Amino acid sequence: MVVRTSSSPSTPTEALRALREAAPLTQCITNAVVTNFTANALLALGASPAMCDIPGEAGIFAGIAGGVLVNLGTPTREQRDAAREAVTAGTPWVLDPVAVGALPVRTALAHELLDARPAIIRGNASEILALAGSGAGGRGVDATDSAEDALDAARSLTIRTGGTVAVSGETDLIVDATRTARVSGGSALLTTVTGGGCALGAAMASLLAVTPAFDAALTASVIWAVASERAASRTRGPGSFAVAFLDELAAIAPADLDERVRVDTEVTR
Amino acid sequence: MVVRTSSSPSTPTEALRALREAAPLTQCITNAVVTNFTANALLALGASPAMCDIPGEAGIFAGIAGGVLVNLGTPTREQRDAAREAVTAGTPWVLDPVAVGALPVRTALAHELLDARPAIIRGNASEILALAGSGAGGRGVDATDSAEDALDAARSLTIRTGGTVAVSGETDLIVDATRTARVSGGSALLTTVTGGGCALGAAMASLLAVTPAFDAALTASVIWAVASERAASRTRGPGSFAVAFLDELAAIAPADLDERVRVDTEVTR
Amino acid sequence: MVVRTSSSPSTPTEALRALREAAPLTQCITNAVVTNFTANALLALGASPAMCDIPGEAGIFAGIAGGVLVNLGTPTREQRDAAREAVTAGTPWVLDPVAVGALPVRTALAHELLDARPAIIRGNASEILALAGSGAGGRGVDATDSAEDALDAARSLTIRTGGTVAVSGETDLIVDATRTARVSGGSALLTTVTGGGCALGAAMASLLAVTPAFDAALTASVIWAVASERAASRTRGPGSFAVAFLDELAAIAPADLDERVRVDTEVTR
Repeated sequence: MVVRTSSSPSTPTEALRALREAAPLTQCITNAVVTNFTANALLALGASPAMCDIPGEAGIFAGIAGGVLVNLGTPTREQRDAAREAVTAGTPWVLDPVAVGALPVRTALAHELLDARPAIIRGNASEILALAGSGAGGRGVDATDSAEDALDAARSLTIRTGGTVAVSGETDLIVDATRTARVSGGSALLTTVTGGGCALGAAMASLLAVTPAFDAALTASVIWAVASERAASRTRGPGSFAVAFLDELAAIAPADLDERVRVDTEVTR
Repeated sequence: MVVRTSSSPSTPTEALRALREAAPLTQCITNAVVTNFTANALLALGASPAMCDIPGEAGIFAGIAGGVLVNLGTPTREQRDAAREAVTAGTPWVLDPVAVGALPVRTALAHELLDARPAIIRGNASEILALAGSGAGGRGVDATDSAEDALDAARSLTIRTGGTVAVSGETDLIVDATRTARVSGGSALLTTVTGGGCALGAAMASLLAVTPAFDAALTASVIWAVASERAASRTRGPGSFAVAFLDELAAIAPADLDERVRVDTEVTR
Repeated sequence: MVVRTSSSPSTPTEALRALREAAPLTQCITNAVVTNFTANALLALGASPAMCDIPGEAGIFAGIAGGVLVNLGTPTREQRDAAREAVTAGTPWVLDPVAVGALPVRTALAHELLDARPAIIRGNASEILALAGSGAGGRGVDATDSAEDALDAARSLTIRTGGTVAVSGETDLIVDATRTARVSGGSALLTTVTGGGCALGAAMASLLAVTPAFDAALTASVIWAVASERAASRTRGPGSFAVAFLDELAAIAPADLDERVRVDTEVTR
């Protein structure tokens, strides 16, 4: 049985308010391309980023962080060991399996890390399909499948991890064992800036410090949609869009999340 | 015998159009300082960047990429091994020998990689002189020689590799076994932003997916000149210039490359 | 005995003028999050940054650089070895002990590097307290103590190193064996952009090439205060602030440093 609601839930507003109050320490083990943009996005949002990603420190740091991101974009040997430490600290964490499927080192690591049960897996459709074993994987950070194509794969992953899976696309899917939310809106300009999706995963990790996984993933997706729409409305290209996006993340008010973005949530009982 | 033409060739327009249609996957093994700017420049231009730079993956990825960049700016041990894998995949590739000459690790690697015959070598005059064995090398990314000083060195490298050499400077030189092109114009503001030259090398790697090496190097130089001039005309300093430059890379139309930049091509028969 | 003066010393103006004339080569062994922003800040200021951070090259490069920065934000194994090489080259250097205290790898390295007597140690109050052995350390790059709380710890470090300690905060403290300077002003927006403090340490390293340590630290703090105030006055959020800050670093004139920022210097005899 599916119960459909098409009103925005109040949770994103509450979650953003809680994030701003807590300024949660968020550990990011992430790829070399997006560290700066990710840290700036988290600071703009109101979280406290820290990119502690070396063995011998990553596990300790994860123990004091409110949320952890493990992004496999450029997984050096030290980052792989740091990730293994961090995910066993007991802090809720997000897995972003960048380009998993085609590339063996990260694919093996992603499957290994699944045993540590990420609270959220965030990826594009190709990555979610590959991680679930039902697709060939992406050719990098580009999705060659639509988010909806990955719904079954996402559901199967949530059953394995007990967590939430977020599939980024023109419409984002947020999936757990029983619920499916769809967030539409946002701006395609976000895909012309590197790290838009990676920073979204980091925002989910921050929100894990203040709200359950499904709400954290949903809230981050809604924030991204609102901020990217606003930024796009006053920019002329990808360079100025990236700058404006950071400004909008800082300017966004919790109450703004109740408007302007359509969220559909289905519950399967 | 030298045949001189001073009309802009039609190739850059065609090459940019082909790049936009193909959105070629471009693998960048590049330095930690410029990964973000490089990825954003390629996205703005219409290519698909991927910074896959670890051993065990770099060679596989190079096999599916349309072009590969190896930039030696911060060559960690893993990046050096990744570079060795990538250049033997059979995909045309660009060598950017940052600060070669003075620094032994990258200098040894650059000479080793020459055997894998880069389709394009891109550097400033000091780097090209050092790589050809006729100069002391730069003191980093700064050129202390003018591009024209490196013409003979560039030619000797093209004979060794069978490829093209691009020497960046106030006027860029593009050299192969028989041709020399000069691209003037552009803005000096580009030298006040880190990664302008590194991202140019990445653009050449993208263009290798759709056009021969000489045309790829020439097209990228022309794009850089046009976009930097346009960006400089509406900015007040290096921060806003970098943002505007990305906007202009996205806004540039193939036909814009026929205008505004003077290209002289000499052919030695 | 304390002699207090509340007039701005003429040194910052002279030091910035000397920096612009010398364009000193500045080696940065720094964290992955801020490499790009740091390089752009140094270029905007008029220095020549180079991020040479691998073993086998870092020591050689430090020998030709005018100043060296060692920032412990993401200290990989290779960076740790590179730092050990660089600090023994005889070139004056800055230690930025990011998040020292709580994290064992960097804490051990920071204490080891102290024996090589950094000309300047720059950190927030929590880091300075932890490095001096009188605090628990920060939880990352956030200061949880005020700069003034770290005055005694800073003084004890200057006695150990013979150098200067700069404590960043709402009011910056610059301390050596006998002098204490306080720089107020600036904008809190700087704390919403990652790397503001890290790039400040890099600017101090550049200034070490042209002026003694105390003056280098003071000048960089004054530049940061003036440029951040100016940038804040024309921006709407952290994204546009970061861009404007780079523009203002480039636009700032040496004479601007005599105005607008209050510097108090005490001398203890």
